[in-house]
Amino acid sequence: MHAISEQNLFIFLLQIVLLLLAARGAGELFRKLKQPALVGEILVGIIFGPTILGRFLPGFDAFLFPANAVQHTMLETMSWLGVLFLLLVTGFDVEISAIWKQRRSSLTIGFVGVLLPMIMGAGLAFFLPEHYLVDPDRRLVFILFMGTAIAISAIPIIAKVLHDLDILKSDIGLTIISAFTVNDILGWVAFTIVLGLATRQRMDWFSSLRIFGGTAVFIAFSLTVGRRLVNGAVKWMNRSRLPKPGSVLTFIVVLGAACGALTQLIGIHAAFGFLIAGVMAGGSPAISQRSRQTISQMVYAVFVPLFFVSIGLRVDFFANFDLLLALAVTGVAIGGKFVGAWLGARMSAIGGRDAVALGIAHTPGGAMEILIGVLALEFGLINLVVFEAIVVAAIVSSILVGPLLTLALQLRRAFNARKYLLSDAVVFSLAGNTPLEAIGELCGSVSDNAGMPGAAQACAAVSLREGVMSTGVEHGIAIPHGRIEGLSQPVFTFGRSRNGIEWNTPDGLPVKLVFLILTPEPDADDTQVKILAAIARVISDNKLRRHMLASKNREELLDFFSTALRADWMSRAAKKSAK
Amino acid sequence: MHAISEQNLFIFLLQIVLLLLAARGAGELFRKLKQPALVGEILVGIIFGPTILGRFLPGFDAFLFPANAVQHTMLETMSWLGVLFLLLVTGFDVEISAIWKQRRSSLTIGFVGVLLPMIMGAGLAFFLPEHYLVDPDRRLVFILFMGTAIAISAIPIIAKVLHDLDILKSDIGLTIISAFTVNDILGWVAFTIVLGLATRQRMDWFSSLRIFGGTAVFIAFSLTVGRRLVNGAVKWMNRSRLPKPGSVLTFIVVLGAACGALTQLIGIHAAFGFLIAGVMAGGSPAISQRSRQTISQMVYAVFVPLFFVSIGLRVDFFANFDLLLALAVTGVAIGGKFVGAWLGARMSAIGGRDAVALGIAHTPGGAMEILIGVLALEFGLINLVVFEAIVVAAIVSSILVGPLLTLALQLRRAFNARKYLLSDAVVFSLAGNTPLEAIGELCGSVSDNAGMPGAAQACAAVSLREGVMSTGVEHGIAIPHGRIEGLSQPVFTFGRSRNGIEWNTPDGLPVKLVFLILTPEPDADDTQVKILAAIARVISDNKLRRHMLASKNREELLDFFSTALRADWMSRAAKKSAK
Repeated sequence: MHAISEQNLFIFLLQIVLLLLAARGAGELFRKLKQPALVGEILVGIIFGPTILGRFLPGFDAFLFPANAVQHTMLETMSWLGVLFLLLVTGFDVEISAIWKQRRSSLTIGFVGVLLPMIMGAGLAFFLPEHYLVDPDRRLVFILFMGTAIAISAIPIIAKVLHDLDILKSDIGLTIISAFTVNDILGWVAFTIVLGLATRQRMDWFSSLRIFGGTAVFIAFSLTVGRRLVNGAVKWMNRSRLPKPGSVLTFIVVLGAACGALTQLIGIHAAFGFLIAGVMAGGSPAISQRSRQTISQMVYAVFVPLFFVSIGLRVDFFANFDLLLALAVTGVAIGGKFVGAWLGARMSAIGGRDAVALGIAHTPGGAMEILIGVLALEFGLINLVVFEAIVVAAIVSSILVGPLLTLALQLRRAFNARKYLLSDAVVFSLAGNTPLEAIGELCGSVSDNAGMPGAAQACAAVSLREGVMSTGVEHGIAIPHGRIEGLSQPVFTFGRSRNGIEWNTPDGLPVKLVFLILTPEPDADDTQVKILAAIARVISDNKLRRHMLASKNREELLDFFSTALRADWMSRAAKKSAK
Repeated sequence: MHAISEQNLFIFLLQIVLLLLAARGAGELFRKLKQPALVGEILVGIIFGPTILGRFLPGFDAFLFPANAVQHTMLETMSWLGVLFLLLVTGFDVEISAIWKQRRSSLTIGFVGVLLPMIMGAGLAFFLPEHYLVDPDRRLVFILFMGTAIAISAIPIIAKVLHDLDILKSDIGLTIISAFTVNDILGWVAFTIVLGLATRQRMDWFSSLRIFGGTAVFIAFSLTVGRRLVNGAVKWMNRSRLPKPGSVLTFIVVLGAACGALTQLIGIHAAFGFLIAGVMAGGSPAISQRSRQTISQMVYAVFVPLFFVSIGLRVDFFANFDLLLALAVTGVAIGGKFVGAWLGARMSAIGGRDAVALGIAHTPGGAMEILIGVLALEFGLINLVVFEAIVVAAIVSSILVGPLLTLALQLRRAFNARKYLLSDAVVFSLAGNTPLEAIGELCGSVSDNAGMPGAAQACAAVSLREGVMSTGVEHGIAIPHGRIEGLSQPVFTFGRSRNGIEWNTPDGLPVKLVFLILTPEPDADDTQVKILAAIARVISDNKLRRHMLASKNREELLDFFSTALRADWMSRAAKKSAK
């Protein structure tokens, strides 16, 4: 506290109050309008920055953002914490083991979905007039950067769309999310290497090799030995008498900073180190979900909004705006990513209309695209004009995705899940205390019926899927599912557990209603996904769940669900025909 | 991100890794040695600061802490966040309504416990030679400051000692904790006003009046209308569709920053604004315990340790150390606070040996005393020599408190609670679903016995106490208690609730075992406190609780508890006689 004066502190607190309040308010307003919060947060930055406040209220602007290195640094430190921890928290959701188990299909979709926009982005950069370039002699670096920037996708938006399509928890949903995660990690690797190479004054073989080799070794080590070391360290902390969750929180923060510093030593950006640290921390079963939530809630509530605000604070958007370039970048980004994802989805046997929806879901670049733009600007890879075009592309695509998706989802046909419900197999009271026991009971109950597969075959298929990632969802529901060769037609049933079963659900609630879906392999009509969607939709009704849990006998339990399923189908069919 | 370079970021991450790891490691080590963590954290700062690293490894010191305003500011921003949010989080635990209900006794103990060390501190400052003063012409400010600094106590340490004495949840424990909270709030008010006055270049009537009046209005408004506004705002957020707990977290942070900026406008320090913001947020029933925990866990895991480290980083402790002054300040601080708290405890009818323990508990100045020293140094109220003496006093008193307390606690006699257990009144299965219903049942059951007070009289006394602050403790236990005039001898009993009763317990568990203690008024031998302590000790055994909850009839339930109580008494009596 030598450098920071009382006046600095006062201005800093004022900045926090005004910027955070405005950013979070605007963010929530945009969320209410079904738009991503970051659009509102960036707009607040533009309003408080040189574009509006600096232009129309220069006196207040000079008071709130005095030209003083100490004052600048205070707010920038918050903004840096926002960037770095945004990547850490993003890493939490990357499920390396799920990706590994699905590596073949993930890689296929990932490549198709990424290659196309990458080529289009690079093509645009190739043909761009020289005056858009920071250094015309280094067009190759610019081409590499634009290819990467355009191909990066917004995993949270994709996850949300899969959730809205009710296929997030299906095996196809799992494949898609894995594929785009692979995509984004590859994108980050490519971007940080481009950045590392570009910021060297002289490019020689040795430094290039060090960056490539160092990055490869860092990733390989972190995702294998590193992950186990992290898990082991946290396990030790849990066993010891260290206060929980304090010691684990410190550990995650230190891990992020250490990986960040290490990646800087390798020659790539610290942000990538935080991403990988997040992946390591996210994949450690010893770290409780709650510890991760404590960090991510604080990061999203305070630091991330300040980062998005800071984007608008740095640039006068009017002075550097090039409409033509903004249109071109936006068009290429949206078009390339839509076609890429649509093709990828089609190749993984997703129905035509769902593929359109997924293609649309891939269009927004979101937070990561903007972040890459900020870093590229920071390190002189691009100039302000290109930076603004990238920000505009990210914002426009984020705004368009909502309405376009609504349109795409309305095109889907109504599907009657009820005809696949095997009423005779419904179990009134599951005896098992673990997911595998419950799955075994339900499979056994199904196999007692004529024309059904043997319990062992069904159980094996479902357990295999369950092992990849838990099918437990919110509100005490789990929807295990499996594909069985030779099954004549799809079938599903359910059971109730009075005591509840620990199922690793996102909200931590024990599972009291277990739905089992068995579909033929191959499943041409995506019935698994459709049945899953119907169950998820119907069971999201609190009242229905309450009635089912309180039902006095098997008939009542079956009746409640079956009636709700029928009502859901009829209302959806009515909506379709009304159009 | 204009000011911060890649090199700045690298050094910053390195600082975080080294300082945070070392500080938290040392902190936990000290905690294991039954010492406050902050002692270890400050020592780490001294090691990394000019005292050790700067002296013996000047090259590494210059690398890790380069003389560069931007670099300094980054770490200082973290340290400021630590100070400000430490006060916010401290405010969470202040229970204004409990203090208000106990205002008479709280004020009595508070005054006695504070006045004595204040006078002694002021006296020391009065007689100190001129060369210890920053400005000999302003000795009055220095006297006021030293009085305040010496009288400030460490609420968390007192709470821990009351807990170890098993009287935290008794009515006397409540009074004591309220009293010292009042003490500390008054101390902070006094300190911030002294600071506000002292930092003005010219002291005139107008600015003095503005500071006094502004502070009074701010406190009065915040603790009355402000608290309701905060609660109303959070209630609205909870009802609205804003994401939880994100919006509440943002709100608390903005509230802190706004109060901080406001107090700066009034002319006092921002830290006081954060404290009051914490009190407002802590007293709002609409804010979930979990939201508060999310903030305090992050603050204690990352930011507070960096603040304590920063204390050692700023000062060369060897160069400015004055042994005589350090001894004098330490002696006055420990002596004054011990006698003050001991007198206060005696005046509130606490037994001689328990009063000694409480007197000892009051001796450490802890984090708040150091914080006040840092701010006073910052604003030129004291010089480095006095600052170091205050830090040494805070550290030495914090180190001594553990061993001294162990000694004091061993002096207490073994007390046989079992002879007051009214076996006939034990209730095997409580029917009530609320605390008041359960209290009513137990009181009724007691009054059915000869020589016992009427149910209505007992129930009124116990409910009154319960209304002040919940008697629910961890592990599903509640220990309601009351004092009844004319009761011939103390009595207690208990009941079991099969369904559990929502009792506002610290760990949120429903209460399944309710103990009721009735003691005569006056209660010369502190039997209430002793019975409470015995119950708390015995029931902390997980196995006993499990047996009691699983017992099949009334006799079994009574037998389990009664046997454990007897075993506890015998083992304690044996320990005493062995000495």
